[in-house]
Amino acid sequence: MNLKQLSELLGLSQTTISRAINGYPEVNEETRKRVLKAAAETGYRPNRAAQRLATGRAGSIGLVMPAAAGHASDVHFGEFLSGIGEEALKHDFHFVIMPSHPREEEQAIRWLVASGSVDGYYLAYMREKDPRIAMAKSLRVPFLIHGRSHGIEEDYPYLDVDNEGAFRDATDLLLDLGHRRIALLNGPRDLDFAIRRKVGTKTALKARGLSLDPALTHHTAMTDEQGFRQMSALLREENPPTAVLCASTVLALGAVRAINLAGLRLGHDISLVAHDDVLPLLKPENFTVPLTTTRSSLRAAGIRIAERLIAQIKRTEPQPPEQELWKADLVIRASTGPAPR
Amino acid sequence: MNLKQLSELLGLSQTTISRAINGYPEVNEETRKRVLKAAAETGYRPNRAAQRLATGRAGSIGLVMPAAAGHASDVHFGEFLSGIGEEALKHDFHFVIMPSHPREEEQAIRWLVASGSVDGYYLAYMREKDPRIAMAKSLRVPFLIHGRSHGIEEDYPYLDVDNEGAFRDATDLLLDLGHRRIALLNGPRDLDFAIRRKVGTKTALKARGLSLDPALTHHTAMTDEQGFRQMSALLREENPPTAVLCASTVLALGAVRAINLAGLRLGHDISLVAHDDVLPLLKPENFTVPLTTTRSSLRAAGIRIAERLIAQIKRTEPQPPEQELWKADLVIRASTGPAPR
Repeated sequence: MNLKQLSELLGLSQTTISRAINGYPEVNEETRKRVLKAAAETGYRPNRAAQRLATGRAGSIGLVMPAAAGHASDVHFGEFLSGIGEEALKHDFHFVIMPSHPREEEQAIRWLVASGSVDGYYLAYMREKDPRIAMAKSLRVPFLIHGRSHGIEEDYPYLDVDNEGAFRDATDLLLDLGHRRIALLNGPRDLDFAIRRKVGTKTALKARGLSLDPALTHHTAMTDEQGFRQMSALLREENPPTAVLCASTVLALGAVRAINLAGLRLGHDISLVAHDDVLPLLKPENFTVPLTTTRSSLRAAGIRIAERLIAQIKRTEPQPPEQELWKADLVIRASTGPAPR
Repeated sequence: MNLKQLSELLGLSQTTISRAINGYPEVNEETRKRVLKAAAETGYRPNRAAQRLATGRAGSIGLVMPAAAGHASDVHFGEFLSGIGEEALKHDFHFVIMPSHPREEEQAIRWLVASGSVDGYYLAYMREKDPRIAMAKSLRVPFLIHGRSHGIEEDYPYLDVDNEGAFRDATDLLLDLGHRRIALLNGPRDLDFAIRRKVGTKTALKARGLSLDPALTHHTAMTDEQGFRQMSALLREENPPTAVLCASTVLALGAVRAINLAGLRLGHDISLVAHDDVLPLLKPENFTVPLTTTRSSLRAAGIRIAERLIAQIKRTEPQPPEQELWKADLVIRASTGPAPR
């Protein structure tokens, strides 16, 4: 069954059928239902080229993937992408990925937009005062920011996790348990989420008249290896921490190994809280000592970003920028306990 | 500096400049060097739409991403993609990803090709007697298979790891150490690589007059959680294995935890060999007891596939299908030792 045949069967134009299937508002609900029913019964799947002709849209979301020799793949990127994919599939959207050197994303976005191959795009891996936001606002294609950019007015559409609140809560928990020497294994120094997590940690400490010791603060790539290395270094400090905050369960994996190797009991001799992106690969409840976490699903964020971006693309009227800040859940498990005396 | 300005500066047509920059054979080497030098000096970056006009090519590679509600993201997919990205970046190629239900990849590939948005594509997650290969051969767009399909004549272009050889070698190592009860924690039952790894294991056992016990063979998703669950089940067997083969370091992560929880010493009471895709996230040498592995870099495979596919796209003459079978290295570390008496 092709579009022409379906058109003849239903007595509707090919354009109407394409628009109905793609959920554009020009087609009334009754007609849309009739088309979808017939499409399902006859096994019709729309031809993308025909779709594009009918709607003037490519049916695609653009994104930039940091890539370079030696640039490690990021498990968080893959998890987020799977959420985008799940939602895009529902709307028959695909995505166009432009690989880019980590510092040349602006050029990559300009290319995506100029090529006409994307109807909208999202930006991720935001940094402080990120110039990509002003650029995105100047281009006339819908966009959405995953995260935010510290130091820039928040007048752009975004979806972010309340990273500051999450790490403030986690630090408060540790302080309530009597910990005073608290370490922070954070993500890369220039990324917005890492900046906000540090702010949250500092805020909680300050409220109790304490401050974050620079010797106990590390910025690092989020791998198992770095978690092990940085935690080992922390444990060799003259005055080691009694508790540690980890920016990812991946970092925690290495950190826990270093703690075990040092003969310390997690949740007794030392406490640990990790941020949990809900990676299916690595569940905090499955660690030998289950991890206390601040939890926010990266996949759910991917789904929501695709949903909002596709809605923006299909909308005929411009909308004011929508901002969403998700609260992370604090999930207390066995890796946190009272500070040792 | 735009294409028009560069064209005036060099006294060359815009088409020649685009072709030179994209490395098409119509432009002689001297001209190409002159264009690249001028482009570098003036900071010129080609406009993709202009490129496409000049070359008739989209500058893009297509691929299908399995996606669905509840379909877990795959860390192996992300790592492979990072290799593709690294190589694509060098050639100024991007990629177009079509999300697809895991059983509807044929339709997704047809769409990619029909849309005209890709110059070539690769297929992954191959299954036994996979119908996608016949389909790909019938479409007139370059393609490359990552992996192979058991039960189909190998007359198509592919890049695969010698999965059978890898697991034969790993099993031989265990047999040489005196192990006779060998378990296999394998990938999903219908995937080609899992089938070949099982064949390799069986072949090595058979050569010593042994066979693979079905009670010691599990097919599973490649997550930490499944590794833990399946290993725990194996250890509860009346006659438990003295050695286990794991299809991924991710599975091994959970399996090692189950071994530790059971109070067994890895490399003494039980031996383990894992297949190592060289995921930066999870290095076998960083396990508390470093893991013996069969090693083949998934990222290197991604790089090589992009390299071959882009060469195929730029070639003006058709070439016979090229087949590459990479041998996995056997890397012996502390997780394997003599069978306990």
